[in-house]
Amino acid sequence: MKNRNPSLNVLDPDTFAGESRAVIDFLAGYYRDVDKYPVQSEAQPGSLRRLLPDAAPENGEPVDGILEDAGQHILPGLTHFQSPNFFAYYPANASTAGFVGEMLCAGLNVAPFTWAASPLATELECVMLDWMGKLMCLPDRFFFSGGGGGVLHGSTCEAVICTLAAARDRALSKLTHEGILKLVVYASDQSHTTFQKGARIVGIPPSNFRIIPTSAASSYGLTAESVRHAVEADLASGLVPLYLCATVGTTGVGAVDPVGELGEVARRYGMWLHVDAAYAGSALICPEFQGYIHGAELADSVSMNPHKWFLTNMDCCCLWVASPAQLTSALSITSEYLNDVSCQETVDVVDYKDWQIALARRFRAIKLWVVLRRYGAAGLRAHIRRHVEMAKWFEQAVKADERLEVVAPRRFSLVCFRLRPRYEGDHAVDALNRKLLNAVNASGRAFMVHTVVDNKFVIRLAIGATMTQMRHVRNAFHLILEKATKILSP
Amino acid sequence: MKNRNPSLNVLDPDTFAGESRAVIDFLAGYYRDVDKYPVQSEAQPGSLRRLLPDAAPENGEPVDGILEDAGQHILPGLTHFQSPNFFAYYPANASTAGFVGEMLCAGLNVAPFTWAASPLATELECVMLDWMGKLMCLPDRFFFSGGGGGVLHGSTCEAVICTLAAARDRALSKLTHEGILKLVVYASDQSHTTFQKGARIVGIPPSNFRIIPTSAASSYGLTAESVRHAVEADLASGLVPLYLCATVGTTGVGAVDPVGELGEVARRYGMWLHVDAAYAGSALICPEFQGYIHGAELADSVSMNPHKWFLTNMDCCCLWVASPAQLTSALSITSEYLNDVSCQETVDVVDYKDWQIALARRFRAIKLWVVLRRYGAAGLRAHIRRHVEMAKWFEQAVKADERLEVVAPRRFSLVCFRLRPRYEGDHAVDALNRKLLNAVNASGRAFMVHTVVDNKFVIRLAIGATMTQMRHVRNAFHLILEKATKILSP
Repeated sequence: MKNRNPSLNVLDPDTFAGESRAVIDFLAGYYRDVDKYPVQSEAQPGSLRRLLPDAAPENGEPVDGILEDAGQHILPGLTHFQSPNFFAYYPANASTAGFVGEMLCAGLNVAPFTWAASPLATELECVMLDWMGKLMCLPDRFFFSGGGGGVLHGSTCEAVICTLAAARDRALSKLTHEGILKLVVYASDQSHTTFQKGARIVGIPPSNFRIIPTSAASSYGLTAESVRHAVEADLASGLVPLYLCATVGTTGVGAVDPVGELGEVARRYGMWLHVDAAYAGSALICPEFQGYIHGAELADSVSMNPHKWFLTNMDCCCLWVASPAQLTSALSITSEYLNDVSCQETVDVVDYKDWQIALARRFRAIKLWVVLRRYGAAGLRAHIRRHVEMAKWFEQAVKADERLEVVAPRRFSLVCFRLRPRYEGDHAVDALNRKLLNAVNASGRAFMVHTVVDNKFVIRLAIGATMTQMRHVRNAFHLILEKATKILSP
Repeated sequence: MKNRNPSLNVLDPDTFAGESRAVIDFLAGYYRDVDKYPVQSEAQPGSLRRLLPDAAPENGEPVDGILEDAGQHILPGLTHFQSPNFFAYYPANASTAGFVGEMLCAGLNVAPFTWAASPLATELECVMLDWMGKLMCLPDRFFFSGGGGGVLHGSTCEAVICTLAAARDRALSKLTHEGILKLVVYASDQSHTTFQKGARIVGIPPSNFRIIPTSAASSYGLTAESVRHAVEADLASGLVPLYLCATVGTTGVGAVDPVGELGEVARRYGMWLHVDAAYAGSALICPEFQGYIHGAELADSVSMNPHKWFLTNMDCCCLWVASPAQLTSALSITSEYLNDVSCQETVDVVDYKDWQIALARRFRAIKLWVVLRRYGAAGLRAHIRRHVEMAKWFEQAVKADERLEVVAPRRFSLVCFRLRPRYEGDHAVDALNRKLLNAVNASGRAFMVHTVVDNKFVIRLAIGATMTQMRHVRNAFHLILEKATKILSP
C-alpha cells in the first residue's frame, strides 16, 4: 500500500490514524465544554460568510489549522443538539456507540444498493431490522421470517414517500393513472407535516390531503369516528381513500393515535395504514409502553427513528412493511450495470435499492448493530426510562406551581406547558408565553421550542439529549420560574 | 459533565476517546489489508444470519469484542469499495479528510433543517456550494450571489426528485392538477434510471417517460435533433414537455450530452433542464474538462456527487438551482414548532428543509469544507488527473491488443472494452465477454461490472478508488489477458 507519491495517497493508514485521533480529541473536548456555549446559536446571518474566502483554497492545509478554525468560528455558531440543556424539537442523541458505528460506516464506505454490491452489509441490515422490530414488539408480519421486512432510511419523510408511492401504485393498478386525481390521504392536525409534503411529492392533489382535527377530549389522538366521517364524505364525492397515518408520539405534544381502531377503519375502506413512531418508537422497547402499538398487525407499514432517542447518531430511520413486494413494485427500476453477472439464477436476496428512493446508500446497519450490542436491550431501556423519569419530575413541578399548567397529557419524555391563563384573555396568555420562551432561550442556558394546540401557544420541554441529567432539568425549571417571575411582575 | 451513574453516561469524553481510538486502529488496519480480501464478496445468502442470534442481546458488551466480530464475520463478506482493485460501478472514494469530515458531522450531530436549528451549519453549506460551483466553473446564476443557490443532498435521486417536483408544480400552476397526466419527461437510453424512478415517484404517468436512443455516431450523447423530434411528437398528441435530463459522464459508458444544445431545446419548449454530472462533475474542476459544461447557463439545475470521485466519504450530492423559489414552493410546508419565535421579522435566511425531501438532515457541509481545505483545489485536480492518466494507459493497452477493443470513447477515468468480434457472431461475443467478466471477478483480484450499449455486452473498468495505483491497473490488465487467453484457447 506504500505510495511513491505520498502527497496523493490520501488514505495512508498512518496519516489516517494520526489525523483521525486529533479529531477524537477535538470532539471529546467539545463534549466536555458543550454546556458552556449558548444552547441556541446567537450567530447572525452572514457572520461566517464574511470570515471565509470567496473560493476554495488553491493549496491544501494541515488538519490542525482546520480544526482550530472549526473550534473558533463554526462551533460557537451552531445550535448545540448535544448540549445537556437542549430541550427543543426532539432530541438527536449521540452516543459513543452511535459514533463508533458512524466511523465504521464512513471508514468501510461500502454502498450496499444491491445484494452483490456488498452482500453481508445487506444481510446485517435485514437482521438488524428484525432485532429492532422484536425489541419494539412489532407483529411477526413485519419481520423477514414473517413475510415482511425492513430497511434503513435516512429520514421518516423518505420512508413515508416510499409507502405513499407503494400505496398509490397499488391503488392505480386497479384504476388507470387518471385515478391519481381521486386518491385521498388522511392525517390528523397533530401528524407530522412530512405526510402532507410526501403526499404532494408523490403527486396526490394538494386538495386531497385531509387534516382531521383532534381535541383535548381524545388527548389529541385521532379518533376512528372522525376518520370514518371524513372518508365517508370523500366516498360520497367519488374520491378514493388511499392512505391513513397513525402516530405514536406526535411531534407537537407527544399524543398517541389509537393504532388498532384506526387499523380497522383502514381495513374497512382498503386504505394503507402507516404507523409513524419516529420519536416514541424508541420507548416501545419498554414493556410499559408497548400497549401503544397494539393493533399494529392491521398496519401496512411502521417507521421509527433511532437517530432521535435511541443513542444512534444521525441518520437512521427504520421502516418495516408487511408486503415488501408492494414496496419494490413501486420503486424497482433496473439498469444493466446493476445486473450481477454471477447471479444468473434467481436467488432470493434483498436489493435494497428497490426499498428506497435513492440508489446510493450508506452502511447504516453496522451503526445500529454497534448500538444494540454495546448497550444491550437492558441498557437502552434504562436510557429511555431515565429520560421519562426526568420528564415526570418536571411535569409534577409544573403542576405544583400555580402559575403554570401542563397542557397535554405527558406520555413519554415531552412535557407541554404554559403560563396559566388567569385574569388575562387567551390571546394575552399567548403573548406572555411567547415572551417567556424568548427569555428562556435568549439566556443561552436552555433551548426549547413551542407548538400550538387548541389555538394555545404551548412551550415544549423535550427531554432526550444524551448528557441531560436531573440537575439540567431542575435548572431548566428554575430558569423558567425566574423568567416567569420577571414577566409576571407588574 | 461527571455522572454519578457512569453506566448510563454514554457520552463520557474519556470513554468516547478510548473506544473511538480503537476504531481508528481497526480501520487503519483495514486499509492496510483491504487488498487481501476478494474484492467482490463471495458470501452466500444466509451466511451471516446463521451466525447471529435471533434477537438483540439483553446486556451490553465491550467495544473490543464487537470490533473483533466485525473483523471476523462482517468484513470478509463485504464487497470492498475501498480496495485498490475495485473498478466496478463508479467509485465511492474515501479519504482521510472525508473521514475526518464524517467524524465531525457525526460527533457534533446537529440537524440544520432550518436556519434557527443551527445557523452556521446552514451558512457553511451555502458557502461550500458556492465554492464547489466556482471550482466547476458553473455559471453565476447557480450561486447565492447570482440569485441561485445550492444544497447538499444524500443522493442524485433525491436531488432529481426535488427538481422534478419543482418543474411539475411550476407547470401545474399554469394548468390544473389534471395536467399531471400530460407532463412528459425526456432522457436518453444512457441517462441514469434515477430519472425514470424519480418521474414515477412524483406521479408522472410511466407512459410519459421518453427514453431517447443514442448511438455510436454521437458517441452515445443525446442529440438536440432527437429530443426535438420526440417533443414535437408529444406536442402533436396534446402532451406537455416538462423536463429534460442532460448527463455529463453517463453511468454506462461515461458519455457526455451536449449541454448547450439541449439547453436551447429546453428553452424553446419551456422544459426544465437538469444537468446530471454525478460522476464526471468532479473532473469539471480541471480546466481541460470544463468545455463539457458549456451552455449550463441554459439549465435550471445541476447536480454532482462528491461521494463518487471527490475524496468525500458517503453521502454527499451537490444540487444547484437557478431559482430557489421554484424549489421551495414545491417543497415548503411549515409546522408551528419550526417557527422560530425569535425571528418574528422576515430575515433573508435559508431553511434547507424546503430545499430537500426530508426534514432531518446531517451537517454534511463540514465534510466538504474539510476535504476542500485539506487537499485544496490543486490537490483535488491532481487526484482526478492521476486517475485519468491511468485510464489513458489502460485504454492504450486495450487498443494495442488485437483481441480487445474499446467500445465507447473514453472521456474521463472509465474505459469500456470487450473481447473483439472475430469470426464469431455478436451473440457469441457477448457470451465470451460475460465469461471473461465472470472469470475476472471470480479470481477475487479485481471487480468490474458490465453494461450493454448498442446491444453489445461491454466490460467497464471504472478507475477511481482512492488507493488505486498504476500497478493495480496494470495488474487488472494482465488479469484480463490471462483470463482472455484461457477463454479464447480452443
